[in-house]
Amino acid sequence: MIKRYDSHKINKLIDNIYLAYGFSAEQSHQAAEMLIYTDLHGIESHGVQRLIMYDNFIQNGKIRVNSTPEIVKETNVSAVVDAHFGLGQLNGIYSMELAIKKAKAHGIGIITTRNSGHYGIAGYYANMAAEQGLMGMSSCNSRPAMLPTHATKAFIGTNPIAFAMPANPHNFIFDVATTTVAQGKVEVYRKLEQDLPALWVAKDGKTPIYDHNDNTNLDLLRDPDANVGLAPLGGVTEDTGSHKGFGLGVIVEVFTSILSMGNISNEITPTDLSVGPCQSFVAIDPEIFGDKTAIFDKFSNYLQDIRSLPTIPGKTIYIAGDKEALAYQNNIKNGIEIDDRTLEEIKTIATRLKVNYQPYI
Amino acid sequence: MIKRYDSHKINKLIDNIYLAYGFSAEQSHQAAEMLIYTDLHGIESHGVQRLIMYDNFIQNGKIRVNSTPEIVKETNVSAVVDAHFGLGQLNGIYSMELAIKKAKAHGIGIITTRNSGHYGIAGYYANMAAEQGLMGMSSCNSRPAMLPTHATKAFIGTNPIAFAMPANPHNFIFDVATTTVAQGKVEVYRKLEQDLPALWVAKDGKTPIYDHNDNTNLDLLRDPDANVGLAPLGGVTEDTGSHKGFGLGVIVEVFTSILSMGNISNEITPTDLSVGPCQSFVAIDPEIFGDKTAIFDKFSNYLQDIRSLPTIPGKTIYIAGDKEALAYQNNIKNGIEIDDRTLEEIKTIATRLKVNYQPYI
Repeated sequence: MIKRYDSHKINKLIDNIYLAYGFSAEQSHQAAEMLIYTDLHGIESHGVQRLIMYDNFIQNGKIRVNSTPEIVKETNVSAVVDAHFGLGQLNGIYSMELAIKKAKAHGIGIITTRNSGHYGIAGYYANMAAEQGLMGMSSCNSRPAMLPTHATKAFIGTNPIAFAMPANPHNFIFDVATTTVAQGKVEVYRKLEQDLPALWVAKDGKTPIYDHNDNTNLDLLRDPDANVGLAPLGGVTEDTGSHKGFGLGVIVEVFTSILSMGNISNEITPTDLSVGPCQSFVAIDPEIFGDKTAIFDKFSNYLQDIRSLPTIPGKTIYIAGDKEALAYQNNIKNGIEIDDRTLEEIKTIATRLKVNYQPYI
Repeated sequence: MIKRYDSHKINKLIDNIYLAYGFSAEQSHQAAEMLIYTDLHGIESHGVQRLIMYDNFIQNGKIRVNSTPEIVKETNVSAVVDAHFGLGQLNGIYSMELAIKKAKAHGIGIITTRNSGHYGIAGYYANMAAEQGLMGMSSCNSRPAMLPTHATKAFIGTNPIAFAMPANPHNFIFDVATTTVAQGKVEVYRKLEQDLPALWVAKDGKTPIYDHNDNTNLDLLRDPDANVGLAPLGGVTEDTGSHKGFGLGVIVEVFTSILSMGNISNEITPTDLSVGPCQSFVAIDPEIFGDKTAIFDKFSNYLQDIRSLPTIPGKTIYIAGDKEALAYQNNIKNGIEIDDRTLEEIKTIATRLKVNYQPYI
């Protein structure tokens, strides 16, 4: 069952849990804030529901609590960060703040970060730049999930791309996996006992799996050596544009693992403590191109013109960020949605860490 | 009928035609070279077949022969170029050379160019950077063709994205429309009298048109006010990822028309002489992140690992640029393919300009 909880209280609880792991006050605040932001914007799959995963990683040493990100190479407009397996959210915030600083000083900052951890939604980091009047981008690699076009085995991660830019009435925030859907979406449909509505999962490189009860095949999505994987954006044939999603996944790999000399998607596993995902962070100051206000106004008008186009009867045109802004308005007022299982997980973690959860839920 | 012609001879003929329009020796050489590169790499839809379109634009004044691109704003890492409606290829080469110069001096160069012209394949410009040991990107907007998800009217161009990076045995060159296919691909299928094999064209925002004989609807692709348009990459429903192709199209618009304060896709028409497409050009020196040779080696090995994955029986995994490299090997030896109609068009143009075509074809 799913219930709503006050976001400020859950934020405080998660904050206390991170403190109990041994993170500093500032780190705990940042990490909690990031998870709550995600739930507030309606992306529950990547919010507090993921605490259990981070908890496992902290317990088995894949996430190292006392790690500090290190700049291993730097120019005015770029840096390579070795995150030394710290918490992904903290590596992400650190790296994007560095990109923002460089963009404010020199117009552009591009950071590539290796030996990181799962950092949640890429859009959060892109939007950090937008919140400061800049354009932001972020992407990350992840364990193998995507079938390169015509391959029967996954090799590339879901490798999301995020881009954010200030606009009215709210920022444009694009954040998408380069597979047709992220792994989490398949899991949501299985939990809801609904068949997959499109070619999301393919067996032997081409045969769609729609049946949510096909546990034999769907469980193989977690096995990088299996003959089941996620379709790239554009499906599994060139006729539908499969090579485009595939190529975008490769480009994400360039900006994350290749430029940072880190681990490629295919090397990432949940168990090996010596490998970690890689991420990229870009901030650009639009002022280097022209008057920032005029640029943002032009962009806002452009987006509004799209929203005003004639539509399929009963359908709405959503610009990237629109649905999340609607969810935020609802969730900040009525509370964030947390399912009972996740709540129990949080309670168990809190109890183990001697954090009193009762005032917060 | 399609025949093969020596690429060097056709190059010289096109060069002479551009000279006859009034372009300088260097300009004519660049413009011809770019078209021939396109045919040599097997992308005939954008090669010398397009000369007739450029010829029309030069005759009606949409392309201005005596125009010079002007830098209207500049920083160490960026510039806004007003192309003043010069030939798209020349604007593109000028702008990418500027991006490359900035990348070599400061690590990164981002150029946004307005009031340009149709510049051919975006991948050519991205690859200019790769040919100099850099990473390159280019994108452009174009007249309305893409249906935003749930819209029944086209508003965004096919807005391609190109990315190139040095690799062995040849450069990685990704160059794709953010629609499922480019307009030209629909035309090719109509000429070949083959039905469209996937949801490329949609009526009323959702109904696929497959019949190549459905001239009534397919001709409406050229009418921005009609209820027929191209599907974004990812189709027309969110289940298949339509919003992802749509969002990528918007991001291309940001880097082209929005940052340059130029014309958005929806303002572009073949007839209005006071509007033109916008383009973006990015060059990045990988050396700002690490040892260039090590990075390119890592990337080449990564791509080779993908090529070596198990495949669907009888199928090959093509990395972006592989097919074009194969076409090049064939065409440089055996000649580029030109259909009779295109050849007649070239002869007619040459005759009008008093260029002797006989030694070249």
